[in-house]
Amino acid sequence: MVDKNKPLGGEGLRGQSAGMTALCTVGKTGTGLTYRGYDISDLAKHAEFEEVAYLLLKGKLPNAQELRGYKNALNAMRGLPAPLCRVLEQIPADAHPMDVMRTGCSMLGNLDMETDFSQEGEKADTLLAHLPAIICYWYRFHQDGTRIDTAACSQDSLGGYFLEMLTGETPSELHTRVMHCSLVLYAEHEFNASTFAARVCASTLSDLHSCVTAAIGTLRGPLHGGANEAAMAMIERWDTPDQAEAELIQMLENKEKVMGFGHAIYREYDPRNALIKSWSKQLSASASDAKLYDISERVEQVMKREKDLFANADFFHASAYHFMGIPTELFTPIFVMSRVTGWCAHVFEQREHNRIIRPSADYIGPDHQDWLPIEQR
Amino acid sequence: MVDKNKPLGGEGLRGQSAGMTALCTVGKTGTGLTYRGYDISDLAKHAEFEEVAYLLLKGKLPNAQELRGYKNALNAMRGLPAPLCRVLEQIPADAHPMDVMRTGCSMLGNLDMETDFSQEGEKADTLLAHLPAIICYWYRFHQDGTRIDTAACSQDSLGGYFLEMLTGETPSELHTRVMHCSLVLYAEHEFNASTFAARVCASTLSDLHSCVTAAIGTLRGPLHGGANEAAMAMIERWDTPDQAEAELIQMLENKEKVMGFGHAIYREYDPRNALIKSWSKQLSASASDAKLYDISERVEQVMKREKDLFANADFFHASAYHFMGIPTELFTPIFVMSRVTGWCAHVFEQREHNRIIRPSADYIGPDHQDWLPIEQR
Repeated sequence: MVDKNKPLGGEGLRGQSAGMTALCTVGKTGTGLTYRGYDISDLAKHAEFEEVAYLLLKGKLPNAQELRGYKNALNAMRGLPAPLCRVLEQIPADAHPMDVMRTGCSMLGNLDMETDFSQEGEKADTLLAHLPAIICYWYRFHQDGTRIDTAACSQDSLGGYFLEMLTGETPSELHTRVMHCSLVLYAEHEFNASTFAARVCASTLSDLHSCVTAAIGTLRGPLHGGANEAAMAMIERWDTPDQAEAELIQMLENKEKVMGFGHAIYREYDPRNALIKSWSKQLSASASDAKLYDISERVEQVMKREKDLFANADFFHASAYHFMGIPTELFTPIFVMSRVTGWCAHVFEQREHNRIIRPSADYIGPDHQDWLPIEQR
Repeated sequence: MVDKNKPLGGEGLRGQSAGMTALCTVGKTGTGLTYRGYDISDLAKHAEFEEVAYLLLKGKLPNAQELRGYKNALNAMRGLPAPLCRVLEQIPADAHPMDVMRTGCSMLGNLDMETDFSQEGEKADTLLAHLPAIICYWYRFHQDGTRIDTAACSQDSLGGYFLEMLTGETPSELHTRVMHCSLVLYAEHEFNASTFAARVCASTLSDLHSCVTAAIGTLRGPLHGGANEAAMAMIERWDTPDQAEAELIQMLENKEKVMGFGHAIYREYDPRNALIKSWSKQLSASASDAKLYDISERVEQVMKREKDLFANADFFHASAYHFMGIPTELFTPIFVMSRVTGWCAHVFEQREHNRIIRPSADYIGPDHQDWLPIEQR
């Protein structure tokens, strides 16, 4: 939960500018989130994820021919290199899925190295195509004992591809549309911690895989990428909205953290919430355990009433993903599949007008210490 | 080369405080670099690297018994887990050695996961013990076609261990002492870009391996870790000091970058230079191609005379490492073996008083863009 009255500036660089971007505004205009000037509501309602990926990575919305060409190119890159598959097989079944993503991305850097920045667009597209394959290959290898062929898929969108690779079954039109919306919502968010880590890495003129690997590791932290998983862990403990309300109030009295509410930048509401919430509601209509939607809605009401806190993008993602049969531990890897577009676009931008990011620190340590030979210590 | 007249602040966060540290001062007192209050000259002249690692990671200089215990503990952790060896074997012979370090560190996170911050000290020690083994295992696998046993080594210091693993031969006393000095000099340097990347990652409460993986990727960039390799590539082109001087002056006239000179923070001189320079001189006395020292010294004189720029820590490292028979492409991995102590100490410190590092950005992109259906684009 975010303290709305916390002053800007100081530790955490909150409110301090660390550079320029043409990619995104957060909390500034309209519903408060724009990608290259386009309102998130327009994008989430009307665009396929690949249109938004194109917008972020190539600078404009594609026309029909460009989109078709882009999707064909991405789809042709779905097969993983054999040494990457061998590496994924060495990662234990009980590993953290974000560690799998991080290691898969880093390994890819050895096999598909960016040796010149003129390759950056092509390397970003390869990452975009490979990241869903990486997590699904590792997951199915351990869950089903199979080596899936990540190039063999009937789906022509990244969201549909992920669902089919994960389950081995053709996803419904509804599920594919929800994935589009979800991937669009998570694609970009200005100088959040993982993106900023990618830019710090880029500022030494390191390669793209190093930047994205750094970002994945940063997103892994529970204060950043883990919120929808934590929200899921909370809501699935409850059987009814009334039980949820009673226990939530107890949690608030105990000053326990409630994940999925409030935001470091947004003050009034998170424009992404209404968009994913409406999909969660539609999904609940055909779900066997639809109660999770009613429970989520009650939690949202109680948090507003008791704490004046709003649900952020993560909260209704928990129930939406659950209704689609996605295991909770894969929620944050989906975030990676989407945000890789924003990360790469920021790396490209950092490189355009680079200065190495090297801040100073306030020293709070000891004054001069005289050296003592070891036998005198 | 650094422009000494560039104003502080603005892009790159230069001169702006991004947090507090008790670990290091750069350019403040005495010879300008202290670790926990101890002057870098004292540490580089008198301390073994393991004493400095202990100082950074555990907060004080060890007494003789503590140092013995610490070295024994590190030495017992030299064997690499088998799945990590299998992963290293999948990395091609022509990979970038820093990508090998990054991937090895990330893979280790799958096998030795930090599940609770109470494990941070132990995980840092394991990384310290494993990183030299990771690079040497991969290097020898491809160079010699052998699978070295990284646990079998007669050397009781990390520097000696690296040299023996790399060459298969017992290193001389002189070489081991130079490695101590080098590893001490590179161990810590406040909020440099790679350390700052580690702290940004740590600020989301991510695990230690994610933080160190991010730092390795950031150090990989030529503006950060690559300077001693670039210096080596330059000086080995020349046969005599006179030739070096003539071609260097031509380079300066062409406004070419000369790596290993100047510094983002130090204004007058880099306190680490004299320390490694004197070892480079000693090593040159027994080297077959001692000319590289004379060439380096001439380059230093010319840069001072022509540009008023001083040699930084990296410049004489090039000739020193070369005299010890270390391949140029492994220079930056040695930096990693050392700086991992500073990185981990900063992660511990960030966790103590954490606030997520999430700056803002100045928006320079387009204003509101109306959504256009794809057929109208």
